[in-house]
This record gives sequence, C-alpha cells and structure tokens, in this order.
Amino acid sequence: MAQKLDPWKSSENLDYSKLFDEFGISPFADVLPQIKNPHKFMRRGVIFGHRDFESIVSALNDKKPYVVLDGFMPTGKAHFGHKMVMDQIVWYQQNGAKAVVGIADREAHSVRNLSWEECKRIGVEEYLISLIALGLEPENARLYFQSECEAVKDLAFELGIHVNSSELSAIYGFSGETKLSHMVSTVTQGADILHSQLLEFEGPIPVVVPVGADQDPHIRLTRGVASKMNMFLIEKRTDKDNKPYWSVRGKDAPENAFELMDKRLKSEIPNVKTKVSKEHMDIFSDMSAGNEETLRAVVQEIELELGGYAFIAPASTYHRFMSGLTGGKMSSSIPESNIALTEDPKAAAKKVMKSKTGGRTTVEEQKELGGEPDKCSVFELFVFHLIDDDDELCQIQNDCQSGKILCGECKKKAADKIEAFLTDHQEKRKIARERLCEFGINY
Amino acid sequence: MAQKLDPWKSSENLDYSKLFDEFGISPFADVLPQIKNPHKFMRRGVIFGHRDFESIVSALNDKKPYVVLDGFMPTGKAHFGHKMVMDQIVWYQQNGAKAVVGIADREAHSVRNLSWEECKRIGVEEYLISLIALGLEPENARLYFQSECEAVKDLAFELGIHVNSSELSAIYGFSGETKLSHMVSTVTQGADILHSQLLEFEGPIPVVVPVGADQDPHIRLTRGVASKMNMFLIEKRTDKDNKPYWSVRGKDAPENAFELMDKRLKSEIPNVKTKVSKEHMDIFSDMSAGNEETLRAVVQEIELELGGYAFIAPASTYHRFMSGLTGGKMSSSIPESNIALTEDPKAAAKKVMKSKTGGRTTVEEQKELGGEPDKCSVFELFVFHLIDDDDELCQIQNDCQSGKILCGECKKKAADKIEAFLTDHQEKRKIARERLCEFGINY
Repeated sequence: MAQKLDPWKSSENLDYSKLFDEFGISPFADVLPQIKNPHKFMRRGVIFGHRDFESIVSALNDKKPYVVLDGFMPTGKAHFGHKMVMDQIVWYQQNGAKAVVGIADREAHSVRNLSWEECKRIGVEEYLISLIALGLEPENARLYFQSECEAVKDLAFELGIHVNSSELSAIYGFSGETKLSHMVSTVTQGADILHSQLLEFEGPIPVVVPVGADQDPHIRLTRGVASKMNMFLIEKRTDKDNKPYWSVRGKDAPENAFELMDKRLKSEIPNVKTKVSKEHMDIFSDMSAGNEETLRAVVQEIELELGGYAFIAPASTYHRFMSGLTGGKMSSSIPESNIALTEDPKAAAKKVMKSKTGGRTTVEEQKELGGEPDKCSVFELFVFHLIDDDDELCQIQNDCQSGKILCGECKKKAADKIEAFLTDHQEKRKIARERLCEFGINY
Repeated sequence: MAQKLDPWKSSENLDYSKLFDEFGISPFADVLPQIKNPHKFMRRGVIFGHRDFESIVSALNDKKPYVVLDGFMPTGKAHFGHKMVMDQIVWYQQNGAKAVVGIADREAHSVRNLSWEECKRIGVEEYLISLIALGLEPENARLYFQSECEAVKDLAFELGIHVNSSELSAIYGFSGETKLSHMVSTVTQGADILHSQLLEFEGPIPVVVPVGADQDPHIRLTRGVASKMNMFLIEKRTDKDNKPYWSVRGKDAPENAFELMDKRLKSEIPNVKTKVSKEHMDIFSDMSAGNEETLRAVVQEIELELGGYAFIAPASTYHRFMSGLTGGKMSSSIPESNIALTEDPKAAAKKVMKSKTGGRTTVEEQKELGGEPDKCSVFELFVFHLIDDDDELCQIQNDCQSGKILCGECKKKAADKIEAFLTDHQEKRKIARERLCEFGINY
C-alpha cells in the first residue's frame, strides 16, 4: 500500500501546533515507534500529543505496573465520543494497566445541579455498564464515585492548600460568580488523577490519563500541584567545568532528611560522592541510567518514610475529537450530531445515512475529483470506531479520493456496521449489568 | 446592694452598637429576663448580643431538645479566653443541650500548616481535655474532628454550591492569593454549625453557637446558606385589607409539594383556607401561635419527606473579649497577656501580680478618687472567671471605686484564686484524660 494513512491531511479544525508550542505538549509521533502494539488511535494519529508518555512506554515494554485513569461526568447519554475514551481504558488494561475509573459526580452535582441519586444512575447506566460491555474486566480495575471515595475527597482538600483562586481563574476562566464547590470540583479531578499513588492504593506509580485536548488545563494544574506537594525535587545540573551531577532540593523536609539520604545513597551507589547541606544535596557519580534509577528510588523511599507523597508526575495523551455527524462539533445537545451507545440500532443507522460526508456536489464531479475523506464524518466513524484494519481503511481512503466509491456506498457500509455494533453492544450491556457487583458497584 | 453591676460602664474597646445597627445583632438584654437561671456571662453583660436566641429560650424553658455547638481551632495553648467558651458549652449541657464540639483541624491544617497529627494532639491535649475537666459529661455530648467527620465534610461541599467567591471575599476579605482550601474551611465551619440538623444526627433542631463578636461573619454566612438550601420559605404577609396570612414559597421543590402540603394542612389546622399554585401557597386561618407551630411542623415534615434539609436558622450569642493581662488585647503570641489552662499555677499567679490594673498613679490619689475597675484586667478576671457570686463582685467594684481597697490587695486575691483554680483544674485534667474514651476519642 503506497499511500500513507492520514485521516487529517488538510483538516484545520484545531490548531494543534499551538498546544505543542505554547503548552509544552509533545507530539505523540515521537514516542510511537517505541510502542510494540500501538492502539489504532495511536497508529492513526487520533492520539496526537502527550506529556511524559515515556514513563508509560517503559512500563508497557518492561511489563511494569502502571495505572490508566479516567473520569466521566454523569450528565447525559454516553455516545461514541465517550466510547473513544472507554476503548483506550480497555486497551491499557489489556496491556497491563490497572484501570481506575471515577464518576465525576461532584462536578455534575455542584455545577449541573443533578441529585446524587441521578448522578449514580447515569454514572452506572450510561458509563460503567458500557465500559464493561466494551471489555473492561474486574481484575486490575477499580471503579468509583467521587462522592463515595473519602481518599479522593480528602486528597482534593490537600491539593486545594496549594492552589489559589487567581490560579484557578487563569486556568478555568472562573469569576467572582463561580461557586466555591465548582472550584473544588477542579481539585477533585486532580485528586482523581493522583489518588492511586497514595500508599493506601498503589503508592507512587506511573499513571496515564487519556483525554481530549480541552482537558489539558486539568492535567497542567494537577502536575503542578503534585510537584508542589512533593518533598524533594531532583534535577540534573552541571558544575563550572560542565561536568554533570544531580541535585536534590527539599521543601519543608524534616531536618534529618538529607543525612538519611546521604547514608542510603552511599550504601547503594558505588563510589558516589555527595555534598550535603540542610536544604539540599549534590550527588556526584557515574551518571548512568542505573544510578539515576537508584537515586530516584532512594529519594522516593525516604520521602514516603518521612510521610511525603513522592508523586510521579501523571502522564497524559491527547486525542482529536470526532466531528458531529451533521458536520461541526459533536454535541449532546444536538441529537442528530451524535449516536448514543444505548440508541436504537436502526435509528442510529438512519442518522448515519443522513450524515455529512466529504462528497462533491454532483456524482460526475466526485468521479472526476474524488471525495474528501478528511472532511467526512462517515470516514471518521471508520477511523475512530468501525474499521480496525488499517489496510481496509487505507483502501477506502484511496477509493474515495480516486472517485472509485461514492458516498451512498460508504454511508450504507457505515450504517450497517453501526447497527451491527450497537446490536451487539446492547446485548453485551445486558451481561455487563449483571456483572456490576464483580466490580464492587452496588446499584 | 444599691449600685448595679456594670463591668463596662465606660469601656470603649469595641463599638458594639455598630453590631446592633449594621449587622442586625440583637441586644442580649432583650431576652435576658425570660431566662430562668442565666449564666453569669449573661447576667454580667459579658454576653451582650444574639441572633434568634428566642428559640433557645423556649427550648430552655420548655425543656425541649436543642444543641450547643462550638469549634476550636487547634493551633496553640488553650487559655482563659477559650475557657469562656468552654464554660458556656458546659452550662448549656447542664441546662438540657446536647453539646457538639468540633476541632477545626481543617483550618489549622490548611491555613496554619500544621500536620493532621499535630492538630489531633493539640485538639485533644489543649482543648478537649480541659473542656471535660471543666465539667462536660459524655452523655448528651459529641466531640469530633472535622477531618474525621464525613458528614461535616460532605455538608461543607453542599454549602459551597451556594456560595461564590465574591461573597467569600466580601465577608472574609479574601484575595486572589487565598488558597482554595482556606476558602473551603469557611464552609466547613458552616457545616460544623448545621450538620447536627441532618437526619443522621438530630434532624432539624434549634442550635446555639456561643461566639465572640468577631465570629459573626461565619454565623451570617451559615444562616444565609441554610436559608438558600431550604426548600420552603414561610412568611407572614397581609392582604389588601391588611388581614394577615401565611405564605409558603418553594425553591426547586418537587411538583407535587404544595398539593401534599395542602392536604396535610387541611387535616391539621381547623377551618384553614388555602390558595395553592405551583410554586407557592397562601394559608388563611386563625393566626394563633399554635397554628403557626403546626404550619411550621407540616412544612418541615414535608420538606424532609421530599429529601430537603429544613434547617432551622442557627442561633448565636456574642460575648465580649477579655483584655490581656498586660492591657490591650489578649494574644497567644504575647505570653504575659494570657494564662494557659496548663500553665504552672505559681507562674500564673506571678503573671497576675504583674498585670495591668485600673489603679491610679499614687496610693493617695487612689484613696481619694477610687480605682477604675472597668479598666482593670484583674477585675475582668473576677468577672469572667474567678468570682461566681454577683454580690461579692459588686462589693469589690464598690470598694475599688470608693478607694477602700487598693490594687495590691485585689491582685493578691486574684493570684490566689488563679493558683487554686489551675491546681484544681490540672488535677481534673488528669481524670479527664482517662475519660477521653467515654467521649469516643481515640488518642
């Protein structure tokens, strides 16, 4: 197959370069080659950016423990946009991650005015049942509601000690009208992301949060606060002769911290030399990856012994959004723009048949110029959900661009696939509902 | 005894009239005559103001259940300023109240940077042990730490749905620099005040909060939010012929609420007439106190059935502050200005001997003009803590003002009493420590 699969060749629906340049998100393409069996979203550029995904790559490749964390706000129907996230959670679980999924009922309750009972019902019915139907297994999974998880609520309070209202306003555009508990919802999301690293759960562990680009403010806030809450900061520096060394600085660390660290390092790193002061220490040794790992392990160990958190900065990936079936944004408030996972399969198929494609004005024109799959919501359905095989997808892209196939044919194909998928998914939902108790969900 | 006891005849240390006029605090003198055996702070004008204390008077006189609630922030030594509050709590308990006392460790932790362990230690050692030593009994008492009380923390979140950051700034002078969890501490105090009215505790019940005048912002905030959270508002109105009637308005009340209320009222109030609409109803009946009580009971009952809170606005009393022993304010950061309840009795007696009195420059002058007890920190010790008998206190006031007794004599008397009190209190603290488990305190 000569042509490369590139679903967004000319798409301009989001200026992703701004995210790279201004916000420090890294291109996912940089880490992609290191992933052995990447998810189709990774291969196809649906996932386009990341922060610190290197730590997840190494967990994946070395089969080390890590966590995938995501949250769903229980306010309405789960649709194919949510399925994207669910698919990723299931994939990570199948690739060694512990899957931790929170229902963000604090936000739904405080901002959207839904009762806790309603939050619970929507959370289970719309989100958790579909997530299980999509393949989540109880082993190595933890599903929870924010309102029922004391650890998350208490950690949110700790996070809130390190965030002031100006910072929240800058990140979220809050004003004086913003309710206090809306503000608290933001640190609750931070606690969702970080709480798996508490000792009562997994302890410090790499965590990946797969989100849409619009969720990066949460990630930035959480990474910033995690760093503020840590007791020690490890940095690589160079001395006046340009020789590299490590520096460990302490924040509110107990007096004996560096003495302790010094002793431990000297017993674990051969030929290490150190310079210890009250609030920081310099470490001179062979700068090998092995020594760095030992250093980090010792610092983490000591921080935990001293009652600190030793959070590892959470990693994240950023995915593109699906367009709405009617063109423009997919929105829960425009029913024709999206398909719910609980929607009648035949009705869903009809929506697909009416959806906006990348077709030309006339059949003749399309045969001559070819269609534009990168502007086609039906092609997006293939890319995101309906076709797993890249070759098959590439074939459709080629056939469309060459004018060989027309929109009617593609729509019919997608409609059939959607109907079949939903029929199957809804059968699986029945089984999933019976399995809720295996996940500890009382409902 | 001819002269009236008036410890603050010419005192100007706080312009209390402003509190009455601008903030709607009522003079305590208005309700005093209705209280059968008032506490010495009430008799002596130490407690000078209140909000809604009428509800407490009626609970006191009719021996109906009510709650006294107070909180202590565990940041340092408990001194005689704190004893004032403890004395009131014990008095209310002895007069029929359930005593609910919270240790405000959320504020100490988030604002003062104390570890939870330190908060616990100070809360128990300094505050709870002395409170028990001062006479609190385990029956009809509940002592708790905010951080350990899920009901308080969850209710704080609910309160925060109804408060925005502008309101908090206006009340507490918060700025953009204020940490989120500092803001959360304010609604946590609101939850301290209100949570006893949750169904899992006492249900709707009169609650009195004895505080210093500086704490009124908390009370105002809490009363305001409680009113916002209630489902129904009962008001007395008059029609165009100036005939009075009751109006009940609903906020987010379920559709069937007023229908239900109408039915219930018609079966409980004889000859009642009503006008029911979707969001409010008018009630025409004999406007007797009995009927009003029935109306309130029915509205409360229905609100609870419909899942609402039906909070009774918390009552409060406001007391004057003791001056510091060195004159000026009593402050924990000036050790000579106050006496801790755990202080060495002899050292405390020495502090009293060195304290600022209302004496004149020379003995001759004092014999001629008399002393000024309303400017005397030793006389305040008598008023607030050391003399229970009003006649004895009045005698000292008279003898001082007539120049009959001099400052040395008073100081000696106060020093002896302080030493005796502390010796006794510290003995009682030993017993109190053994009784912590009776109060459910694991320490």
